[in-house]
Amino acid sequence: MSATSLPTPYLRLDLAKAQASIEAMAARARALGVGLRPHAKTHKSVRLGRLQLEAGAVGLTVATVGEAEVFAAGGCADLFIAYPLWVDAPKARRLAAVLERASVAVGVDSTASLDAMAAHGIRPEVVVEVDSGHHRSGVSPEAAGEIGRYAADAGFVVRGVFTFPGHSYTPQTRASAAADEAIALAVAAESLAGQGIAASVRSGGSTPSAQFAVGSGGGGLTELRPGVYLFGDAQQVELGTCAMEDVALTVVATVVSHAGGRVILDAGSKALGADRAPWASGYGRLAEAPDARIVALSEHHATVEWSGGRLPQLGSRVLVVPNHVCNTVNLADVYVIGDGPEAWPVDARGCNS
Amino acid sequence: MSATSLPTPYLRLDLAKAQASIEAMAARARALGVGLRPHAKTHKSVRLGRLQLEAGAVGLTVATVGEAEVFAAGGCADLFIAYPLWVDAPKARRLAAVLERASVAVGVDSTASLDAMAAHGIRPEVVVEVDSGHHRSGVSPEAAGEIGRYAADAGFVVRGVFTFPGHSYTPQTRASAAADEAIALAVAAESLAGQGIAASVRSGGSTPSAQFAVGSGGGGLTELRPGVYLFGDAQQVELGTCAMEDVALTVVATVVSHAGGRVILDAGSKALGADRAPWASGYGRLAEAPDARIVALSEHHATVEWSGGRLPQLGSRVLVVPNHVCNTVNLADVYVIGDGPEAWPVDARGCNS
Repeated sequence: MSATSLPTPYLRLDLAKAQASIEAMAARARALGVGLRPHAKTHKSVRLGRLQLEAGAVGLTVATVGEAEVFAAGGCADLFIAYPLWVDAPKARRLAAVLERASVAVGVDSTASLDAMAAHGIRPEVVVEVDSGHHRSGVSPEAAGEIGRYAADAGFVVRGVFTFPGHSYTPQTRASAAADEAIALAVAAESLAGQGIAASVRSGGSTPSAQFAVGSGGGGLTELRPGVYLFGDAQQVELGTCAMEDVALTVVATVVSHAGGRVILDAGSKALGADRAPWASGYGRLAEAPDARIVALSEHHATVEWSGGRLPQLGSRVLVVPNHVCNTVNLADVYVIGDGPEAWPVDARGCNS
Repeated sequence: MSATSLPTPYLRLDLAKAQASIEAMAARARALGVGLRPHAKTHKSVRLGRLQLEAGAVGLTVATVGEAEVFAAGGCADLFIAYPLWVDAPKARRLAAVLERASVAVGVDSTASLDAMAAHGIRPEVVVEVDSGHHRSGVSPEAAGEIGRYAADAGFVVRGVFTFPGHSYTPQTRASAAADEAIALAVAAESLAGQGIAASVRSGGSTPSAQFAVGSGGGGLTELRPGVYLFGDAQQVELGTCAMEDVALTVVATVVSHAGGRVILDAGSKALGADRAPWASGYGRLAEAPDARIVALSEHHATVEWSGGRLPQLGSRVLVVPNHVCNTVNLADVYVIGDGPEAWPVDARGCNS
């Protein structure tokens, strides 16, 4: 329970736990012999990004030009926009401005996106995105060479290939997704090599697959891009990626009602986010009540079925572990450090374009 | 398709459509003989709240003290916090400040919450919350009198009773939820009357149930609190509450990839919200492609299965209709009016405590 009287719901960051997770993933990357490039869309915080860089990260990953602007302005000199960016004239101007203060590589999965960048006179280093089984964006690994050749002919430097093994987000597929990722990146790098282009980077990674990632020694990754690991969340707990006691970020909520013999909290989807994977046990978890389940979520209500024991009293505060922390953070303006009053800004909150 | 070159994703508001829906609901309330008190948590906009008041709304509903602060500062003189508020010392001070500039009634569903307000020296008008079948917060209708008596004895003015018929949010239960609502409010008012307290207000309403609401003439509601109706969203379209062409708020997104023969958009859960009801056909809809379905959603990707015809070309813009517009609005800083450049602030964005 939090001792603070800050208005709930708010984000509470246990910095010691986050630091431990930052160091553990850095050690994992060293053991694998790969560069660690954490995805900063999770935390959107310049200060947390700095902690990752100080622990040995080679740079940061971002999802949007808006995030790149914030992190470049915050002094991060090496960014990768791991996204198949579509650049029109205004976005080209913004990206050009970021390129003046930082090294920025950009994801591509179409020749049209390369044409668009070239048409606007902008040629960042590019990384070809391939689909390793998540079936979102990215070309097939065998087609990486074709995109790479087109890019090189159009005057782009091709850094290598990347994938997001998002199909690691089920309890059964963490290891197999990591295997798919390694194979896809190897095939993609070979496809590039067939066009005379050396893939200096084979970039993959997600928090659930990181434990099973294949390093460059095994012909797999040269770079890892996990995001959620520094905080953890209910999804990661239920996937088995972290223990509940390792979760660094919680939402402090107040018990506002005992209607129906349940616990109603003032943290709803506008504080937690509405994510719920098919395999999730609820809309989030309670850090200090492992058997309780959030069975319903409205914008300002979490309905909790308490399992045994007395209900926490009206007006008391509990720590909610959100399902998917990236969306939770994007809903808040600040992290309260421990019980406060120190607070760190969510610098790139809302910078999603 | 939008002609603007604003960076996507962003909120696009068709003001003429919103105004038509504002007027239609005002007419509905007049026909029912009930006061209309729209829920401003949907739009969080002082200007849109003013349009509702100009169309005849008796006041606005809000969910949090933070929203009450914004709307009171914006000149709205009559607010109802339709939430079982827990008031500690800092919140009591904030609420007292709002009470100096506006009439503010507060929801209650426990004697403890009344004790907490009294302990902090604050006694707003209260409205007893009852559960009409949604099973979230609120006491049973039969218990309203007990709470009301406790409140009156503690020096509170009891305005009446309220409920949220949230079980109206399925395609089959819109009418039955409205019937439940009317019965619950009548029983609750009778329970109050048994304690010698006249319920001058019996407040209910949601957008899906509004069409079926029972007015005061039938012994039902005296006040209606729908929220979503002024914008509409994919949930409302699929519930049958509005037609796709009536939807006033969309998220403008760019086609960034054709991976896998599908359409990948740059509007993900950080722009749309992650809501998906069990009966929803996807993670949102496309305004101008009725057969397309958003089959997967990540933070920055919507994966769209296109049904027949050519895919929209890379770099083109489409209008996404989010599933649940309240969460969508809370993710944005501004509404772009039509194709811009005029933009209205989401004044209470993030004011969720």
